[in-house]
Amino acid sequence: MIKNITQDQITLQIIKALKEGKQKEFQAIVEELQPYDIARIFEGLPKKHHTRFLFFLIPKQIAELIQELEKEHQLRVLNKLGIEQSGQVMDLMENDDLASLLENLSPDKIEKLLSGMKREESKIVQNIMNYPSETAGRMMTNRFVWIPQHYTVREAVDKLKVFAEFSETINYLYVIDNDKKLVGVVSYRDLIISDEFEKIQDIMYSRVISVSADTDQEEVARVIERYDFLSIPVVENNNELVGIVTVDDIIDVVLKEANEDIEKLSASGKAIDFNTKAHVAAYRRLPWLILLLFIGLVSGTIISGFEETLSKVVALAFFMPMIAGMTGNTGTQSLAVVVRGLITSDTNKGVVYKLIFRELKVGLIIGITCGILISIIAYIWQGNPVLGLVVGSSLVITLIIGTLAGTIIPLILYKFKIDPAVASGPLITTLNDILSLLIYFGIATMFISKLM
Amino acid sequence: MIKNITQDQITLQIIKALKEGKQKEFQAIVEELQPYDIARIFEGLPKKHHTRFLFFLIPKQIAELIQELEKEHQLRVLNKLGIEQSGQVMDLMENDDLASLLENLSPDKIEKLLSGMKREESKIVQNIMNYPSETAGRMMTNRFVWIPQHYTVREAVDKLKVFAEFSETINYLYVIDNDKKLVGVVSYRDLIISDEFEKIQDIMYSRVISVSADTDQEEVARVIERYDFLSIPVVENNNELVGIVTVDDIIDVVLKEANEDIEKLSASGKAIDFNTKAHVAAYRRLPWLILLLFIGLVSGTIISGFEETLSKVVALAFFMPMIAGMTGNTGTQSLAVVVRGLITSDTNKGVVYKLIFRELKVGLIIGITCGILISIIAYIWQGNPVLGLVVGSSLVITLIIGTLAGTIIPLILYKFKIDPAVASGPLITTLNDILSLLIYFGIATMFISKLM
Repeated sequence: MIKNITQDQITLQIIKALKEGKQKEFQAIVEELQPYDIARIFEGLPKKHHTRFLFFLIPKQIAELIQELEKEHQLRVLNKLGIEQSGQVMDLMENDDLASLLENLSPDKIEKLLSGMKREESKIVQNIMNYPSETAGRMMTNRFVWIPQHYTVREAVDKLKVFAEFSETINYLYVIDNDKKLVGVVSYRDLIISDEFEKIQDIMYSRVISVSADTDQEEVARVIERYDFLSIPVVENNNELVGIVTVDDIIDVVLKEANEDIEKLSASGKAIDFNTKAHVAAYRRLPWLILLLFIGLVSGTIISGFEETLSKVVALAFFMPMIAGMTGNTGTQSLAVVVRGLITSDTNKGVVYKLIFRELKVGLIIGITCGILISIIAYIWQGNPVLGLVVGSSLVITLIIGTLAGTIIPLILYKFKIDPAVASGPLITTLNDILSLLIYFGIATMFISKLM
Repeated sequence: MIKNITQDQITLQIIKALKEGKQKEFQAIVEELQPYDIARIFEGLPKKHHTRFLFFLIPKQIAELIQELEKEHQLRVLNKLGIEQSGQVMDLMENDDLASLLENLSPDKIEKLLSGMKREESKIVQNIMNYPSETAGRMMTNRFVWIPQHYTVREAVDKLKVFAEFSETINYLYVIDNDKKLVGVVSYRDLIISDEFEKIQDIMYSRVISVSADTDQEEVARVIERYDFLSIPVVENNNELVGIVTVDDIIDVVLKEANEDIEKLSASGKAIDFNTKAHVAAYRRLPWLILLLFIGLVSGTIISGFEETLSKVVALAFFMPMIAGMTGNTGTQSLAVVVRGLITSDTNKGVVYKLIFRELKVGLIIGITCGILISIIAYIWQGNPVLGLVVGSSLVITLIIGTLAGTIIPLILYKFKIDPAVASGPLITTLNDILSLLIYFGIATMFISKLM
């Protein structure tokens, strides 16, 4: 009984069992643990115990363990096992996990690894790898239970008993006709509450919602989220059932997509987490910063173009950071609304025009409010009413333009099938910097005689 | 058979059935639809059809429909039904959905609505509403199946047949002892593949992973995501089973939390989507912008403090936007890494110190690289080596400080249990603006005699 002890105590017991070579004790502990926890314990063990740890596990357990490890560790474990056993383990892994493990390896490494697998299993994996990444086809598993529509409830339950061990999820049973086409779905619950001699086709739900194999993973996530499904069937174009996508993969997609949006909006660089090494993190962030450095120099060139104006009225420089900053911020605000909105909403021309018009109005309200406020402040601070007007009217115009830029640029990128989040916060900010300086100094130069 | 026709055609058929008053035809269509789709059709119908639409539905269907509507529409539908029928419908709604529908209403409105419900159901809802929002207790449902540990598989299946209709999810059966304490879990799959005379306590998995009722919803999401569960049991402090949280609610949590982070990081204002009215969106964004306007004025005050330096070397102004912008950007990059990292990682002192040290190194690498680059550019552009050194060394220092500010500020907020994302991008950016100007003009003033 290990149910009431802590992870640390479990780890100690496991080390003890490993040291003493007691596989039975080892198994008694491991059987009660979730794969995630086994993986964490494995990673925490001194390396010298790893070989025996793996030796004490059955292939099914190794398969589950591997799926919870980081990619680099996954390969290390597979290599440790040798071709034959690694083949057995890979046969038992979920196809989609295996495909994503293999995708970045060299062709001959893939071939070497696949050579240990059963032919039909390795074929399935290779098949999955043919779908573009981030599609339903790439995420699907073929470990699900399908039944012919002419089965009775009893026959279906019998088939389940045989297949339950191999299936990843058996919340729904998908029903197919003689051509392997998807014609219905029956939930586990339906089977349990139905009479055993009823025909599946009489109890099944026939308006099945499915996705096609080339559907983008974000769209798959949207469908599952919308309908609160636990899994969704994947079909080829002729409605032939080829796999299912399960909700646990969808949670990962939702998390990953959100993180990617945040990474891009903040230009924080791809995949930097708490464990990334400093030089790697710096290397990933630098390209953006250097690009922004040059764009920032464009701002500098604009200011230098207005050097005469600036040297006549140095006070103009006092309001530069405020105007540039505000314009950048309002652009980022619009950008965030658009980027997240595009993920959760359906878009058509009407929606887009309505959105642009809405943001124009937002820009107007924000611009006029802040413009009046800063006019008064600038007048009081510098005692110069013309300066107040120049600063205020510049802010009205730049805020409207900033809002529109933050709205329209991601929409244009989206239209051209470029991820709108690449118009990242800093890029919009820097662009708005440039525009706002042009407008501000332009207006100031127009009024220069009255400003002095 | 409606399985192969489009949503629009279905809507037309429904309107026809409504107009001709044919409830049977209406039901034949609706029975084949998902609640989400019924809700979309309902919303798309001309208002005049709404009353009969609801009249043609059975209470169970209305309950499912309501759960897919926006909050304002939910209340409108309930009001249309009248106390008695709305009570029936609310009895059938999921408790957590009902609790979140009621939470913002006035006490007497809540009382009025609850008065039509069965006493035991309304008690459960009131009980859920006693938990703080965003906790497991608030999200849990009590519609799940629990079985005593001494049951046989056969008895469990029989109980399931009775309860299947009432339970939201029956993927797992939670096993309790005589004191209602959670002692095990059995999956549906286990039941199907087990012999019917086996005892539940012999086939159950006894190291059950559960959350307590006051666990934060983000933590619940993390556990479900980690273990790929379809639901998780919720217990009170004494391990008494009080409800379950299902994976569909978790997807909503993950999406909502990610959106909130993005909203805060971009200060784009709470809950602005494509349908928000312009004046509402402007009103939600303005507080931030006005705050930032005043902070921006602080930058202005700093520059005005260095007016003499600036009027002597106007070229200093050319590099202001670049330095301020770069410092702001690098801070935002660090911030995003920290905010997302805190969500997905466990934190302790070691992790935090390691992270701060890592970001210090990142700041050094980034600062030195960009500093050298800009020194050379500034020298070539302005032909002044001292100016190059001033700009370059300022950038080194400001980038290091910017990186650290973006790391340490959210960590401090987190330590004081304030959501680190409120140290939003624009706030960090503006703060870094101020710091960078102080450093830049400070260094320039020190070298002013050599700069001229």
